[in-house]
Amino acid sequence: MTTIDTVLNRLDDNRDAALDRLFELLKIPSVSTDPAFRGECRRAADWLRDELAGLGFEASVRDTPGHPMVVAHAKAKRRDVPHVLFYGHYDVQPADPPELWEADPFAPRLVGEGDARRIVARGVSDDKGQLMTFVEACRAFQETGGLPCDVTILFEGEEETGSPSLPGFLAANKGELTADVALVCDTGMWDRATPAITTMLRGLVLEEVVISAAKRDLHSGMFGGPIANPIHILARIVADIHDKDGRVTLPGFYDGVGELPEEVAAQWRGLPFDERAFLADVGLSEPAGEADRSILEKIWSRPTCDVNGIVGGYTAKGSKTVLPAEAGAKFSFRLVGRQNAAQIAANFREFVKARVPADCRVEFIAHGASGALQLPLASEALTRARRALAAEWEKEPVLAGCGGSIPIVGAFRRDLAMESLMVGFGLDDDRIHSPNEKYELSSFRKGARSWARILAELAK
Amino acid sequence: MTTIDTVLNRLDDNRDAALDRLFELLKIPSVSTDPAFRGECRRAADWLRDELAGLGFEASVRDTPGHPMVVAHAKAKRRDVPHVLFYGHYDVQPADPPELWEADPFAPRLVGEGDARRIVARGVSDDKGQLMTFVEACRAFQETGGLPCDVTILFEGEEETGSPSLPGFLAANKGELTADVALVCDTGMWDRATPAITTMLRGLVLEEVVISAAKRDLHSGMFGGPIANPIHILARIVADIHDKDGRVTLPGFYDGVGELPEEVAAQWRGLPFDERAFLADVGLSEPAGEADRSILEKIWSRPTCDVNGIVGGYTAKGSKTVLPAEAGAKFSFRLVGRQNAAQIAANFREFVKARVPADCRVEFIAHGASGALQLPLASEALTRARRALAAEWEKEPVLAGCGGSIPIVGAFRRDLAMESLMVGFGLDDDRIHSPNEKYELSSFRKGARSWARILAELAK
Repeated sequence: MTTIDTVLNRLDDNRDAALDRLFELLKIPSVSTDPAFRGECRRAADWLRDELAGLGFEASVRDTPGHPMVVAHAKAKRRDVPHVLFYGHYDVQPADPPELWEADPFAPRLVGEGDARRIVARGVSDDKGQLMTFVEACRAFQETGGLPCDVTILFEGEEETGSPSLPGFLAANKGELTADVALVCDTGMWDRATPAITTMLRGLVLEEVVISAAKRDLHSGMFGGPIANPIHILARIVADIHDKDGRVTLPGFYDGVGELPEEVAAQWRGLPFDERAFLADVGLSEPAGEADRSILEKIWSRPTCDVNGIVGGYTAKGSKTVLPAEAGAKFSFRLVGRQNAAQIAANFREFVKARVPADCRVEFIAHGASGALQLPLASEALTRARRALAAEWEKEPVLAGCGGSIPIVGAFRRDLAMESLMVGFGLDDDRIHSPNEKYELSSFRKGARSWARILAELAK
Repeated sequence: MTTIDTVLNRLDDNRDAALDRLFELLKIPSVSTDPAFRGECRRAADWLRDELAGLGFEASVRDTPGHPMVVAHAKAKRRDVPHVLFYGHYDVQPADPPELWEADPFAPRLVGEGDARRIVARGVSDDKGQLMTFVEACRAFQETGGLPCDVTILFEGEEETGSPSLPGFLAANKGELTADVALVCDTGMWDRATPAITTMLRGLVLEEVVISAAKRDLHSGMFGGPIANPIHILARIVADIHDKDGRVTLPGFYDGVGELPEEVAAQWRGLPFDERAFLADVGLSEPAGEADRSILEKIWSRPTCDVNGIVGGYTAKGSKTVLPAEAGAKFSFRLVGRQNAAQIAANFREFVKARVPADCRVEFIAHGASGALQLPLASEALTRARRALAAEWEKEPVLAGCGGSIPIVGAFRRDLAMESLMVGFGLDDDRIHSPNEKYELSSFRKGARSWARILAELAK
């Protein structure tokens, strides 16, 4: 049986070749949103298939209504080892505006000196550099005696366009794709020296409301006063949904929220997070939201309500004295813990209806409802991953939350009944989706070593 | 000296010829908004000049940067008589959509039988039929011994495009246009048998507010909670501006509002106004606004605040989890009595600023501020016009308010220090600006007789 040190040494020996391989992948402009790059997406899929096949995986490119999936399987030599599903995506965001790039976005290059070296190219952090950390870890195992776990790999090519083919693909290939745990490499580190495991993702309820009063737009001079204004009704609803302390006033909204385990709370309190700098970065100086919570808590572990859009009446330049017939707003609720998404959507609708006059009308449009995802602290996979990352980085990994949602994680739980371990090596300043996207060379190298350690720990 | 009966008889004898003349004017498609009809606008102006010159007026067509003005003067035989300025407009709205007209909008025709006959054509009620009532009254005087007052006539051709040339023209011709009182014939009757004098016009303050929080749009998952949402801030302002009884909460807002004189209040209470039908016509059943006021009061004599437009964040189809950087709304205040427009605009800005967090920004854009206009009950011109209309219609005229503004009336007061007597014979169902615009034949005939009586009364 190979020791982990043998595998890590192999990774270190291979690292220049590994970088060359990543550069090859980065040179393929696999922009999924633009039909002009359809062939390039397939080329990236083919390249990955060939790469995995070369490592002894049974690898195939699978057609979908959109861009193809890459699926690959390899077994450990030992029996009765865990089976992991690794997920990543080979598609990238468009590289526009091109004039803001310092060089060709699809001509990857190393920039900087020594420990500060980074790779600059479109898609290097999101997600090609990340997924290649895992491929390189697999290579090192295969070249030194074999994988410690059974491994299935799923790379999709539509992550940047909302993964339209994914649910159907998971449903059609459930048996083939279900593993003991999913490894998702699309998240980040706390900072360039501190690894993180994302253990909480907020859920999301999206509800659009359209309120109609008069049956046509009216002149606000000739009708203003006795005729209900739907903008006023809507504003009252938006205003009522928070109290003066920034808490959401929906009945039952905080049911199932819960407090952080003390171990996690203590870790967060100890993190060097500069609230002033965080606010200053977006041009603000005062935190909004719940008065008695830190900014990290607010984003990682507290539920919120935000109106993402509002519109009614005349919105172009100048003025028009119209009393509009309707006004609408798009509400989003971020959920945590065991908050019930369906119940919150229902309570919201009651809350709105109670504020709409009897002779006005309200239409609701649901744009999705999903609960929060949380990896239990007691999870065996989490415990082993923590140990592996601590060994590699010589620092305890941060058990992070994520304010947004990562749809694949919800899909794995919902469709494959599988929990996800979210480990990634991106940094906040990687400029994903922006010009001059980069990935730290240390993230790439130590990321591959981290996956090797995690696989070895999971197999113990 | 001619008696009024001689003049009225002459009007009755002339009435078929008067209708022919009105039809000639209606046939000219003087659509001011559409450059294709520029020549037609001038043709209407020329036609009116010729008509007035034929009646012994010193009449001219005056160029402006836009469509021309028609100015005409005629003196009474007697000296020391009042000087009146009559205002009307010869331009009309476009006649689209043409397919909704039952016949050519510029081929006027009589429709209906007996007392219910009406003239159908674009611009007949707004404002060609109305202005010709005055021209026909002048003709009857000129043909029977001369005008009882000195008369100046001003017809403009840009009323439907916001009168852009008017302020400059008034300023440049102040001496020539200033009279003892202005007669404005662009309003309506209470119903087809009951005349009205509009004695109150609400004022208008238009203020746009744009609130900015973060310096760029953010992801509502990654930033929602600790980052201020400008839609929420704006909604709070809109919600706070009315109390639960529908009153405006701006400090000092009701200063100078005052109650109606009992004579007017009693008249309004006695009017057969069906509140249920008014609301049902726009699809509603419950009055909004101040809880303790009638609908007529709310529109004619009470101040209001309406948001005419609001916009922020993502407003297209579907959802987008954006935390917007800014949100804006357009507020309008309708003013009455002696409410101070400038003070209300200033108080509003303070009210808004008090609700914007210190680290957010607010921009104000003023789109105009003008106070209400009110003809005092004790005005001599009003008393005489009431007597004249009561004699013609055998009914006391309603002293009406108007919820909207009539900019020319404000301009006459502001630029020429001249009060306006607003008398017109339109009806609510005349479909002005809409297909199949009409004007009652009785409005045209008795309207001309009404002006004859008003001129005679003013001269007594």
